[in-house]
Formats: sequence, C-alpha cells, structure tokens
Amino acid sequence: MTQNYKLTISYDGTRYSGWQSQGNTTNTIQEKIQNILSRMTNTKVDLIGAGRTDAGVHAKAMTANAHFTSTMTPIEIRDYLNKYLPSDICVTDVSIASERFHSRYNAISKTYQYTCYSGNLKPIFDRNYVYQIECYPDISAMRSAAEYLIGCHDFKSFCGNPNFKKSTLRTIHNINIHCDGPYITFTYHGDGFLQNMVRIITGTLLEVGFKKRTVQSIPDVLSAKKRSEAGFTAPACGLCLIKVDY
Amino acid sequence: MTQNYKLTISYDGTRYSGWQSQGNTTNTIQEKIQNILSRMTNTKVDLIGAGRTDAGVHAKAMTANAHFTSTMTPIEIRDYLNKYLPSDICVTDVSIASERFHSRYNAISKTYQYTCYSGNLKPIFDRNYVYQIECYPDISAMRSAAEYLIGCHDFKSFCGNPNFKKSTLRTIHNINIHCDGPYITFTYHGDGFLQNMVRIITGTLLEVGFKKRTVQSIPDVLSAKKRSEAGFTAPACGLCLIKVDY
Repeated sequence: MTQNYKLTISYDGTRYSGWQSQGNTTNTIQEKIQNILSRMTNTKVDLIGAGRTDAGVHAKAMTANAHFTSTMTPIEIRDYLNKYLPSDICVTDVSIASERFHSRYNAISKTYQYTCYSGNLKPIFDRNYVYQIECYPDISAMRSAAEYLIGCHDFKSFCGNPNFKKSTLRTIHNINIHCDGPYITFTYHGDGFLQNMVRIITGTLLEVGFKKRTVQSIPDVLSAKKRSEAGFTAPACGLCLIKVDY
Repeated sequence: MTQNYKLTISYDGTRYSGWQSQGNTTNTIQEKIQNILSRMTNTKVDLIGAGRTDAGVHAKAMTANAHFTSTMTPIEIRDYLNKYLPSDICVTDVSIASERFHSRYNAISKTYQYTCYSGNLKPIFDRNYVYQIECYPDISAMRSAAEYLIGCHDFKSFCGNPNFKKSTLRTIHNINIHCDGPYITFTYHGDGFLQNMVRIITGTLLEVGFKKRTVQSIPDVLSAKKRSEAGFTAPACGLCLIKVDY
C-alpha cells in the first residue's frame, strides 16, 4: 500500500548545488535521496522538500515527504537510505505521515541559523560552517536594527529573486543574536523566508554592525521594496536550516 | 638578528600527507609553512616539528621551531603566515624561544585524542574528525585493558614501523576514556609515542571493547614485542594531537 512518508534530513551543503535544482544541475540533496528511494521501490519517487536551501547552505533538520510503497519499516527505510547516501547527507528520521501531509504547504514556521566568526585565528575545524568576518560588529546596534524586522512586513527588499511574482509578505517571529567568544549566531524564526532572505537580512544587519548603515535606515529599506536598498547577501556557508515546524 | 621562533599550529589533516614527508610527497603541513617562511625571509628556512603526524591526522596544537631573521614582530609573523596558509592550517601562536630550544628534543610529553563515534546516524558535521564504529564497545573492559598500558613499557608490539631501530621504551602517564552520547574519546598522555602507536593502542582497546580479545591478553601483547600480536591500526581521521609539553 502506498504510504506518505515524512523524512527528516541533515546535510553538509558544501559540495552541493542546494536542496533542489533550479536549473540543469543534478548535484542536489533532493536528487541524491530521490534516486535511492526510486531504486529502493523500483518506481519513480518524487521527494517534496519543505523549502529550497541554496547551494552551500546546510541543514540540521530539513523535512521532506514522498509517497511510495514499501514492505520495510520506517527505521529500515532510514537505514537503507543512510547506507547508500554519501557521508555528508544523513536521514535522521523516517515516519509515516497522514495521506494529506505536504512538507511545504503544511509548514507553519522555520528556524534558520546564521553563524559568523570574528577572531584573529582561522576557525580550522568549522571553516565550512561559518562566515569569517574581518572585525567584530556592534552587537547592540544589530539587535536594535533587527527589532524593525520582527513582525509581518513586505520583505521585497530582502528577496534575492527579482522575478518573484507572488506575495513577499512574511512574518518574522523572532531574531536572536547570540555571542559566544568569536562566534556570533543569528537565529531567525518566521513563518517562511523568501529566496536568499536570511542571507540578505544577515548582510544588512552586519552592515549596521560595521557602521556602514544606521539602525534607523532599516524601516526605509523595508518600505523601499527594492533589493538594492538592502545590504549584501551573506555567504551561503554560514547558513543552516535548523527546524521546520508543522 | 637570527632568532629561534616557536610556532604553535592547528590543522585539519584530511587533505595532507601528514606533518612531514617520509617520501617524495610534498603535500605536507610542514612544507606549506616552511615555504611561506622561506618566501617571507628570502632564505631557506627549516621548520622542525615536535613530531610527525600521519597522513590524515589532525592537530589542535602542534609545536615547531625555526631559526630565521625578520624585522616583523611575532604577531606580525603569525598573521603573515595565516594570510598565505590555506583555510585548513592556522598558526595560532608565534613566540621567540631561547636559542637552544628544539621542538622535538625538548618535548617532555604529548597529549593525543582519538575520537570514535557509535550511533545509528552518521555524524555529518564531524565526519572527518571521528572514526565511525559499528557497535558500542564495552567501556569498562577497555578501561581495564588500558590500565595495563600505563607506565613505562616496551611498546614494540604497538609500533607501526617494522624497521624502527631505536628504543621502543615509552611511558604512558595516563589513558582516559570519556563517553558523551555516541562519542567515545580516548585521551593519551605520555612522554612520547612511536609511529602509529596511538592508533594501534586504540585499535587494540576497541578489539577488547568488541570482545574480540580479552582484557587479560594485553600483558601478553606487550611482552610479545611483535606488531602482529596487537590489534588493528585505527584510522587516521579519528586522531588529533592536542598538546606538546616542554
């Protein structure tokens, strides 16, 4: 009998062209898993992800779902996938979901983390998971700037896709900026994020932290609804999808 | 004026043929640093390491020294090196040592850590720094077996170099086996270690943990003075040089 399976997936995105191909490339996390599921079931399986992470972005717990028939238990499916997946992708959980569960449409919120490193010494062992910044930003200014972004806003200025036609309204529930030695971690919790949105917000907050723009400029950036008014897109390597809530 | 500089170095050994070449390869951490020092000073600089780590072995704090002339301060030398070194090698400290300081001859003890991972799920983010084992070993048996290795012994059975002609007597001050969830960390502190010695001891202790050999077999392994009596050589990726004491 065909079941709807929910998968939770952890990956190091360094080597990949993102969760899902936007063009011709097949080097995506989605394809890696989908190919094994298709081989396992001898049918073509479509794996639906909760969202698309960009090339180089990591995930602690991406959620996806797929409809297929298998005689294996969910744990056996998990172990089968992990056996054939490369060492930088791990399916951490497989469970049977209701027939109507859709990992993207049913997601009510997501949590992303962006990690910067500001130290005299290179972070050898997590160099692929942090963005190395030259000087230490003004944390208090960044926290004040972040306040302006919390709530429901039109985030068009923070959307990396100029051809995006749908609504750019999103609600950010919380932005937490945590410091631990040379590490600065931005945690974003919201109902959804536009393409590159977390990276552009982080870039903009860092510009506030580096005194390249003022705290008070943020409302103007929002109301401009122009990508050129926001800051730079912080590099992919610092970003990690932490959790998808349903 | 020529000074004797002491360097402390951290590296991810994954991509390298070890600290120092034993053959023709030039892909070593020593050469990477030595080449930059030579270019910096316009002279041939010899960098002497406290020991040789194998291909794929990591270091938090390898120590080395080199004699050269520079008008830069130690911090400037450190920053110069880090600017030109790849992202997986970092010189964490440079200081001026006494003229007679020799990083290898003056080392009085070293600390190594070997990390195993035993879990259902793959350790995505530290896959290059742990040895993944299939089942969870008997920790208490491994601790009892380790007791036999503490003190001064002839570790010939634990030496990976069959042509080693010098004394194979070494003193292990302490072996600590620490468990943290799926991670099992072996910390070795001793006056010196033979080639592959930490990896062979770890492999032998794991065989005890997996009930492939008894705790009581360890004294026989030591007294046999034959490499074939000891266990397998645990893979390089799990090993890290933590500290060199002077």
